Amino acid sequence: MSRDLPPEEFRVLAHELADWMADYLAGVGALPVSPAVRPGDVRRALPAQPPEVAESLEDVLADFRDIIVPGLTHWNHPGFFGYYAITGSAPGILGEMLAAALNVNAMVWHSSPAATELEEVTTDWLRQLLGLPAEFDGVINDTASSSSLYALAAARDAAFPDAHEKGLFGQSTGRVYASDQAHSSIEKGVLTLGFGQDGYRAIPSDAEFRMRPDALHAAIEADIAAGVRPVAIVATLGTTSSSSIDPVSEIAEVAREFGVWLHVDAAYAGPAAIVPELRPLLAGWQQADSIVVNPHKWLFTPVDCSVLYCRRPERLVRAFSIVPEYLSAPHEPDGESGRNLMDYGVSLGRRFRSLKLWFVLRAFGREGIIERLRAHVAMAKEFTTWIDDSAQWHRVAPTPLSTVAFRFVTAGADAHELDRANLRIVERVNRSGEVLLTHTQLDGHIALRLSIGNLRTTPAHVERAWQLLREAAEGEMASRER
Amino acid sequence: MSRDLPPEEFRVLAHELADWMADYLAGVGALPVSPAVRPGDVRRALPAQPPEVAESLEDVLADFRDIIVPGLTHWNHPGFFGYYAITGSAPGILGEMLAAALNVNAMVWHSSPAATELEEVTTDWLRQLLGLPAEFDGVINDTASSSSLYALAAARDAAFPDAHEKGLFGQSTGRVYASDQAHSSIEKGVLTLGFGQDGYRAIPSDAEFRMRPDALHAAIEADIAAGVRPVAIVATLGTTSSSSIDPVSEIAEVAREFGVWLHVDAAYAGPAAIVPELRPLLAGWQQADSIVVNPHKWLFTPVDCSVLYCRRPERLVRAFSIVPEYLSAPHEPDGESGRNLMDYGVSLGRRFRSLKLWFVLRAFGREGIIERLRAHVAMAKEFTTWIDDSAQWHRVAPTPLSTVAFRFVTAGADAHELDRANLRIVERVNRSGEVLLTHTQLDGHIALRLSIGNLRTTPAHVERAWQLLREAAEGEMASRER
Repeated sequence: MSRDLPPEEFRVLAHELADWMADYLAGVGALPVSPAVRPGDVRRALPAQPPEVAESLEDVLADFRDIIVPGLTHWNHPGFFGYYAITGSAPGILGEMLAAALNVNAMVWHSSPAATELEEVTTDWLRQLLGLPAEFDGVINDTASSSSLYALAAARDAAFPDAHEKGLFGQSTGRVYASDQAHSSIEKGVLTLGFGQDGYRAIPSDAEFRMRPDALHAAIEADIAAGVRPVAIVATLGTTSSSSIDPVSEIAEVAREFGVWLHVDAAYAGPAAIVPELRPLLAGWQQADSIVVNPHKWLFTPVDCSVLYCRRPERLVRAFSIVPEYLSAPHEPDGESGRNLMDYGVSLGRRFRSLKLWFVLRAFGREGIIERLRAHVAMAKEFTTWIDDSAQWHRVAPTPLSTVAFRFVTAGADAHELDRANLRIVERVNRSGEVLLTHTQLDGHIALRLSIGNLRTTPAHVERAWQLLREAAEGEMASRER
Repeated sequence: MSRDLPPEEFRVLAHELADWMADYLAGVGALPVSPAVRPGDVRRALPAQPPEVAESLEDVLADFRDIIVPGLTHWNHPGFFGYYAITGSAPGILGEMLAAALNVNAMVWHSSPAATELEEVTTDWLRQLLGLPAEFDGVINDTASSSSLYALAAARDAAFPDAHEKGLFGQSTGRVYASDQAHSSIEKGVLTLGFGQDGYRAIPSDAEFRMRPDALHAAIEADIAAGVRPVAIVATLGTTSSSSIDPVSEIAEVAREFGVWLHVDAAYAGPAAIVPELRPLLAGWQQADSIVVNPHKWLFTPVDCSVLYCRRPERLVRAFSIVPEYLSAPHEPDGESGRNLMDYGVSLGRRFRSLKLWFVLRAFGREGIIERLRAHVAMAKEFTTWIDDSAQWHRVAPTPLSTVAFRFVTAGADAHELDRANLRIVERVNRSGEVLLTHTQLDGHIALRLSIGNLRTTPAHVERAWQLLREAAEGEMASRER
């Protein structure tokens, strides 16, 4: 007999959890979005030693409810406006439940054919929704950090054809270019690939935080003159701090002129291309060699799910493919064979991530996705009008999508005082437990961010955030007067 | 109002899925373990275009049942003996359900404190169960490929202190050493880090497929004389082809002599250290700088869940830490702050993977884990006695754990004929749909593998595999006689 929990015991617990999950999704808005815990609180509430004997899952669930849940920041809360707001949507969660029960591994085609082919189908569906040409071939990774790392590895392979054999030792310096607003994962990828910090060049951005193509051009020209080999340019569509959108058409011209790989980080903003009136914001991205779009950001898919599109997938394969005998396909009498998705990146083990994406795309459909993204953009737009109409607040950057960058300003305070005031404001707002905002730095100073991306967020939640911000700002002003 | 599926609609579907999952776990043994599909079959059964409008989730579930499930290889099937057999156990699946509903991201402490601290607690519990010293600090990654990549990145940082700044350009060649039986992820990691294939040296193994410390010593000595810098030695405890166990104590002596980072790949075999009589097999591994153990392999945790233990975690942080303002912690009045686990690897986004591991460790407890691992080893041992007692079969390697490497042999056939016969045998056995075995290459020839790691596997399933193997072998012999 099976040595797992008996299926009938599992059934009872799974139903109990189904109710807990439904209650959670219905009631998460009433929980504090950020927990009232200090570092170490949760750890100290749990035993320091592992259990010697089996414990009842009812006890585990009780601890889950009493210790874990109150210690979480609730990303599925409608008042979550931090980082990039995301949604674990109901269809996506259902897909994850099934994937967990199946526990298949799509490392090679024959290790689970339907998992590989559903990944091909869903990434191709998403490509069509995004309006990208058919040459783009998609593969699902865990995060944009991994997707960008893999894209840059392919770019390295293109720039240093003998690096696969000889490595970077003894090669002339290679360099990757991204704007000073690019995500930290790009520099991390560059470090991982062995380029060092010298192998990364942050290109200045303009007053609206978009990479300056002239500065990019000059940097590459100077590098080539100095014997440095340009490896890749990374254009960001939707930067983390301000959601600015690099001028990708002009950047693509630079890439073409110098024959350099163009990678587009559209992890957050990519889904905007599904919305007809927003698609022009991304115009030109189809000229890239590779593009990353994260359905787990602004496309309602539970973490983790990042799609890497690559126009030259054979480059990815060349950078990564090593096929030992224990993973080779059984001999196919007719020579036909499926794709081995492990060859497109570092991770051999590959969860059945396409299942949740398939659930999301079908449950919402193109129309449903468009309607929801529009609602997010409309809420962000309304918030910007409040900011713009107020003397105490200043919008720090344009708001092309659903993320607003702004700050509290008041006459007579120096920049450093304002930085501290903004940090105190966001802290006070977050202490309410009703909403969560995060901060960033723009132009060398603290800015606050309100990112809208959760399906449960309504205009009332945004209004409440605005009210809490104003109250916190009034508190700041009152304490200045004292 | 929320633009997600209404919670009450989710509740109904979640209960429906709870039943499907319980039925699946109860009945998976009656499904064909490998699907009767050809490449492209599943893809062609699905629409080539994405849905324009929302579809009912009942329709999606119908397609899931009718198209997807019949196209899967069922890793949760009790007759799954391929690759490394794994288990999506009931407790682990329950943990994944909750993690999907919560959808939190443990990238930094304050982005979800309990998720970070539960990761600290569960990896420390597992460390204690494994008998590793307290200096080992654990972090959860998706796969062993990623864990080993991160460990090797830390080793690179140790070997080339200025590589973080300058990269590998202009450095003397660096090299990583592993046995010729090491997993392909090690070479892939070496390629990713910019070392090239020249930066990887496969050390010969002995007649029992264990790395030869004398050959390792000689290779490093020769490399140093030639100006090559040794970066890391990777010892494998439980190689993929034969589950051989490198002599890690002797390898650790070599690492110490030359001051080289020692990484231990115990992705599969690690949990054996929980079983008192098996722990001596791994003796010496506690001398490593880093160790990878995958609870999603032989520890009943759904994919993905790989734990990287590092004795010098500050090396990992140095290799990867880049903290931009938008991820920095809110100012802590008393200077206290939690750990930011994103700093220990490439991926910024981090699913709540510790939750399922916590469920598994508590639901089974030390005793329960020991009992189950012992049962797997006992079944493998029994299978080896059948192989050893049969003239037609030959065990290719020792069987220290739960994975058996063997091949069909018959007098008068040359080695190449035997290779083809073994491939035909495994294909014929797998076509039964009752069990799944995979093949590998050992000593330059095809070997079959039977890996036991599923909680639903019983002695009857192993007996059935043996019967199917003998029948297929008889078919081979009959066709030779014709």
